[in-house]
Amino acid sequence: MNDSVYNIAVAGATGAVGSVMLKLLEERDFPAASVRPLASAGSAGKTVTFRGEELEVQELTSESFAGIDIALFSAGAARSREFAPAAVEAGAVVIDNSSAFRQEPSVPLVVPEVNPEDLKWHEGIIANPNCSTIQMVVALKPIYDAVGIERIVVTTFQAVSGTGNAAIEELFRQSEAVLKSEEPAALVYPYQIAFNCLPHIESFHDNGYTNEEVKMVKETRKIFVDPLIGITATCVRVPVFTGHSEAVNIRTSREISVEEARRLMLAAPGVLLIDDPEALRYPMPVEATGHDEVLVGRIRRDESAENSLNLWVVSDNVRKGAATNALQIAELLVAEGLLT
Amino acid sequence: MNDSVYNIAVAGATGAVGSVMLKLLEERDFPAASVRPLASAGSAGKTVTFRGEELEVQELTSESFAGIDIALFSAGAARSREFAPAAVEAGAVVIDNSSAFRQEPSVPLVVPEVNPEDLKWHEGIIANPNCSTIQMVVALKPIYDAVGIERIVVTTFQAVSGTGNAAIEELFRQSEAVLKSEEPAALVYPYQIAFNCLPHIESFHDNGYTNEEVKMVKETRKIFVDPLIGITATCVRVPVFTGHSEAVNIRTSREISVEEARRLMLAAPGVLLIDDPEALRYPMPVEATGHDEVLVGRIRRDESAENSLNLWVVSDNVRKGAATNALQIAELLVAEGLLT
Repeated sequence: MNDSVYNIAVAGATGAVGSVMLKLLEERDFPAASVRPLASAGSAGKTVTFRGEELEVQELTSESFAGIDIALFSAGAARSREFAPAAVEAGAVVIDNSSAFRQEPSVPLVVPEVNPEDLKWHEGIIANPNCSTIQMVVALKPIYDAVGIERIVVTTFQAVSGTGNAAIEELFRQSEAVLKSEEPAALVYPYQIAFNCLPHIESFHDNGYTNEEVKMVKETRKIFVDPLIGITATCVRVPVFTGHSEAVNIRTSREISVEEARRLMLAAPGVLLIDDPEALRYPMPVEATGHDEVLVGRIRRDESAENSLNLWVVSDNVRKGAATNALQIAELLVAEGLLT
Repeated sequence: MNDSVYNIAVAGATGAVGSVMLKLLEERDFPAASVRPLASAGSAGKTVTFRGEELEVQELTSESFAGIDIALFSAGAARSREFAPAAVEAGAVVIDNSSAFRQEPSVPLVVPEVNPEDLKWHEGIIANPNCSTIQMVVALKPIYDAVGIERIVVTTFQAVSGTGNAAIEELFRQSEAVLKSEEPAALVYPYQIAFNCLPHIESFHDNGYTNEEVKMVKETRKIFVDPLIGITATCVRVPVFTGHSEAVNIRTSREISVEEARRLMLAAPGVLLIDDPEALRYPMPVEATGHDEVLVGRIRRDESAENSLNLWVVSDNVRKGAATNALQIAELLVAEGLLT
């Protein structure tokens, strides 16, 4: 082993995001000397495949991180809070996909296309933003830089894979039940998600907003380092397996034409412009699935207010919304020599 | 037969909306002396059931309306344009569910809870607004009257039944195919709708908006008799059989609290307030299906702008969005003696 290969731990390796992290480490040819898959006691002993090799999943404990350089966490906020400090203590840099540390002032919240410079001040933990936030800020960054953004009104159409494997199974089973005219059992969500829309993602705050909606506000402000930007969100779960969609309405500080916004998207890192209504080309979840880019289309002037635009933004919530973003952070840490 | 019973024609009687119109005529105990089901040549000869009786569907022609008092049209804009004038000529009042006449200055566009007074100036044809417009204006009317509304940013989650029976079947078959890992065939929509979202309803205009989005702007202005109200819409088809959902963001002319907005909803005709986040109560399409009310919930102050609120509005698009609204218009015509 030389200096340019790294020992990786994946906490939550059997989950929806963790399993894609393993796939991406391979697919993106990450310089991994070894991979240590970790999960809760219930999943310990299972195997996962990495570079054609069967790896046994070990139980995630405070002792899991000896010799680890990078620990990718995607095992829920409670486990991140419990075990990430131990990983840092053991000398690893933690890239955490949960909400546990996102609002900690000492923890950078990073989307590599948007605020890579924030990686420089990490103290061992770097937070991966929420999926719905990531794809929105990637799409808005070029416009934000070019003309400023004062206000965002966003409505999301979120896939069940954001909740995890149990929700994917629930949508599958409920859909089967409904198609057979049977009563669909709701175990993961409070109500049927098959052929339905649930305007409810995570718990409700006193002001009537859900935690998912609050995250979009707080995380966007932290990533853009802009505590005054106005944001209001309505987050909705839809019967889609993978791929979050967002209807985004923005008011910019200065005027920008639709053509100029399209030009910016064409040049923006991580963005794929799919915006040709005449040819019926626009972003869709089934098209985004399995890809790492944020798909942007349906860019239109909003005539109901000054300096306003509508955009339609779709991305694979498990990839760019979680695993890909975490891997990109790891790659940047390596490239910039920020692993110490 | 006496003066207070009426001969009804239903054009498009075998369609998704037409069949519900027949059901509602019965369910609402409409004073129908007779019902004449009409449809295209392809459906002529089929039977429909009304008050336990089998009625043979007749071909819709210019000769279909002799003796008819009220003609309920739901057979598409082309057929309305072709045959509604003949129905008027024959002495019927036409209530047209298509887009054919909605923007005609001489044709009232009516939602009974919102602008019943516009029925007074009809000249034989009354237009039923678009489904997505109807539920939005029913929900916004009490706020509009109380404090004024200057701007609306709306994002829709529209069910396939808005397209008709073929689309209901397509969602069913495509869902079955996907669950069996088979390739879903797209016949009605340009892409797969099962487990997907299509930001595309009706044809695209040159400005990048779809016709559905343009309708929401024009129809809301006509119904509110407010050509200056700002409206921008993003209309999205989602894999839901019945029940359109809308995330509605409004800027009011004067301030209004969430509590006051809720009180207005409680008193508003045709509105059912379902807004108790603590008890996880909010409107959903599966809950709206089969009901005539517009369900409103998730009312929240939007802190990103002055005098702004978010609402979540759900309704059965085949009922209140089409058939129920048409029947309510017919009932009003009868009650107000406006059938001549």
